[in-house]
Amino acid sequence: VRYAGTHLIVDLWGATNLADPAHIDRVLREAAEVSGATILHGHFHHFSPNGGVSGVLVLAESHLSIHTWPERDYAALDLFMCGECDPYKAIPVLKKGFAPERVQLAEHKRGLVG
Amino acid sequence: VRYAGTHLIVDLWGATNLADPAHIDRVLREAAEVSGATILHGHFHHFSPNGGVSGVLVLAESHLSIHTWPERDYAALDLFMCGECDPYKAIPVLKKGFAPERVQLAEHKRGLVG
Repeated sequence: VRYAGTHLIVDLWGATNLADPAHIDRVLREAAEVSGATILHGHFHHFSPNGGVSGVLVLAESHLSIHTWPERDYAALDLFMCGECDPYKAIPVLKKGFAPERVQLAEHKRGLVG
Repeated sequence: VRYAGTHLIVDLWGATNLADPAHIDRVLREAAEVSGATILHGHFHHFSPNGGVSGVLVLAESHLSIHTWPERDYAALDLFMCGECDPYKAIPVLKKGFAPERVQLAEHKRGLVG
């Protein structure tokens, strides 16, 4: 059975560095690269000083996204990748970058193609 | 029980207008607006003439994304919205914009807050 892509829904709890858009940008770019993805476009929005960050990387193979709630030590990420990329390789990068106490992960296979 | 947001994973099959980035941009912006969301940033990438489109809208309330495979009449969308927005209101906009034969929808509640 083949699918167009693998979409990981990743929630981080008890996490750190969630109010620093430059750090979050770096971690997501590293996460994309270790997964074998090609970054086409990136945008990171800082809601206010010391507030949450919303960011996306558009990939040649779909996208990565993050939304952070520093006041809850919580971040919601999506790692959606097609082709030969492996989004599971990004998980250790996220653990190193945000030091979460707990990681929740759900996998969706999307776009059955054969 | 309260959550930070509702994330709808929406797959469209037998869909049309999947190779037209300007159309896709318009449909996604309308989808964000009817859901009550505020658009902060948008980016739509056209892979080649008549090829697929990858696009994201960063919202004040999380994000919308789309990836299309026109050769398979297939599109993978994410509607992730926090606060008072209702991503279910976007579904009729997507149906009108892409006329899919079939819609697959999965809902994730993310970020339990109380």
